[in-house]
Amino acid sequence: MSNLVVGIDIGGTKIAAGVIDSSARVLARYISKTHAGQPPDDVIAATVEAFHAVLAQAGLQRGQVAGLGVGFGGHVNGAAGLILTSSNLPAWDNYPLRDHLQARLGVPAILENDSNCAAWGEYRFGAGQGSRHLCYVTFSTGYGLGVVIDGKLYVGATGTAGELAHTVIHPDGPLCACGKRGCLICYTAGLGISRLVRERLDRGEQTLLRELCGPTPARVAGEIVVQAAERGDRVAQDVLAIAARYFGIGLSSVVQMFNPDRIVIGGGLAHVKHWLVEPGLVALRENIHPVLHNSAEIVYSHLWEDAGMIGAAVLAWESKI
Amino acid sequence: MSNLVVGIDIGGTKIAAGVIDSSARVLARYISKTHAGQPPDDVIAATVEAFHAVLAQAGLQRGQVAGLGVGFGGHVNGAAGLILTSSNLPAWDNYPLRDHLQARLGVPAILENDSNCAAWGEYRFGAGQGSRHLCYVTFSTGYGLGVVIDGKLYVGATGTAGELAHTVIHPDGPLCACGKRGCLICYTAGLGISRLVRERLDRGEQTLLRELCGPTPARVAGEIVVQAAERGDRVAQDVLAIAARYFGIGLSSVVQMFNPDRIVIGGGLAHVKHWLVEPGLVALRENIHPVLHNSAEIVYSHLWEDAGMIGAAVLAWESKI
Repeated sequence: MSNLVVGIDIGGTKIAAGVIDSSARVLARYISKTHAGQPPDDVIAATVEAFHAVLAQAGLQRGQVAGLGVGFGGHVNGAAGLILTSSNLPAWDNYPLRDHLQARLGVPAILENDSNCAAWGEYRFGAGQGSRHLCYVTFSTGYGLGVVIDGKLYVGATGTAGELAHTVIHPDGPLCACGKRGCLICYTAGLGISRLVRERLDRGEQTLLRELCGPTPARVAGEIVVQAAERGDRVAQDVLAIAARYFGIGLSSVVQMFNPDRIVIGGGLAHVKHWLVEPGLVALRENIHPVLHNSAEIVYSHLWEDAGMIGAAVLAWESKI
Repeated sequence: MSNLVVGIDIGGTKIAAGVIDSSARVLARYISKTHAGQPPDDVIAATVEAFHAVLAQAGLQRGQVAGLGVGFGGHVNGAAGLILTSSNLPAWDNYPLRDHLQARLGVPAILENDSNCAAWGEYRFGAGQGSRHLCYVTFSTGYGLGVVIDGKLYVGATGTAGELAHTVIHPDGPLCACGKRGCLICYTAGLGISRLVRERLDRGEQTLLRELCGPTPARVAGEIVVQAAERGDRVAQDVLAIAARYFGIGLSSVVQMFNPDRIVIGGGLAHVKHWLVEPGLVALRENIHPVLHNSAEIVYSHLWEDAGMIGAAVLAWESKI
């Protein structure tokens, strides 16, 4: 059997595909601008294109790869091969993505949540190696969590364990896209930062962000807020301080509930150390019970943006598809 | 080897001891008013007394039991046999309770957190039988959580997984005994109810509770608040509504993080269905992501106040001490 697998990470801003060997080396890559927030037909078309593109780039035929591992940024029941819900698009509800891709591509496939894939990638080949109970958090547009317990990926009864972003932190807080109030994601990660900035703009506060992203932006990229903060903008600095604090409070829940021996921090915003991660780690310490101080080693990702793609491929390969 | 074990549950209000056989039948019982909030010497003396009392009651000699299982209401590292912290009494910090009891009693012993013991008791012989990923919550003076994952007790890296009571729910909330702000336990379970009532009394609110527990009570028992609520007292009803809501929010974190297939609810306040559990389950549903609705079966304890004692005994017996 081939030791090559295609890994595809269908995330919140792009689709990343790679051909991965059994040492987790990436032999070819392809990026598509399609993302998990789009309708199923568009995502499937882009995934099929990405699959063929990486094969061509690696000079391989379809028969030369053992299969496909897919990570998806949404609620996934991996065992059933289903997307449970995604991006508030009803077309994704209970969507059998694994089987559709298998049928379209003619190779066996596995499907798993993207943070779970990344956790597994880091555990097997990245910053999680040697840990026993590992929590991987992805701090980017969303705030995802993947959990490895006793050396096994833990996904829970219906595949959605580690639903950190939508744990409630302010029961009377603002309405979240999920229909509840005061979820953690209202206050942190890209989605929370965007909401907090729009709230300040609506209130008429004076800020560089009005120039940088217009008076009524639909989405504000975290990177722009960091730029404004670096230029001394107080509103941007305040928003990042809030986002950092709630990032740390989220980590505190992870520590309190799972008591891991290691936490790996990945995702695009994990690079924003001064404004986000460092104050976030202070908030983590302030919000865990003293008995848990220093209970977990906290490290940065090693695989970074490849974590999901590599993890999906490794899961496919290890499932012996 | 004997199929009899002594199980002792050192809880927040009492010590309960029993002789347990390998079918989890309780052959003899003894209750002491000493509790985990007292200093180590007092707790050890009462535990030794309870051990001898149940043996005598069952007509057994020390050599006729295989060992001792101890559940303790505090932070425990079971693998090391240590109490990590308890009740803000520094004398308990890193206290080697298991070894002290082994030395005093001359039988092998195991030590585990009381909620973890109860979770294991329910999983093996109670309302958790047949589940795979089980969360047991004890809703009494405190708000404890024990977790069984894939049929194994999950205690985390340092023994303190499932530290539900001290997850932060209002980062700017009132100061908790643990030194943090706005822990869940400030708003629910016996400790939270007591704090909420004292807050209302301090504010001078008109309530039957002033008569029932005096104007400046150190602790207000949940049962008294339930009595006042039943007599139509609005303050008592408000406090119970808050406690019920945060009980449900706590359950929502459990569901979001662990995605169990079953939750078992035990502890003294779990009997208060109208005022606490039923509105709590409404709050649970309101505070989980819709994809998790109906993901877990929710049932009441079968072993109730015996859960910790039986679970401790079963852990001892299964550890083949």
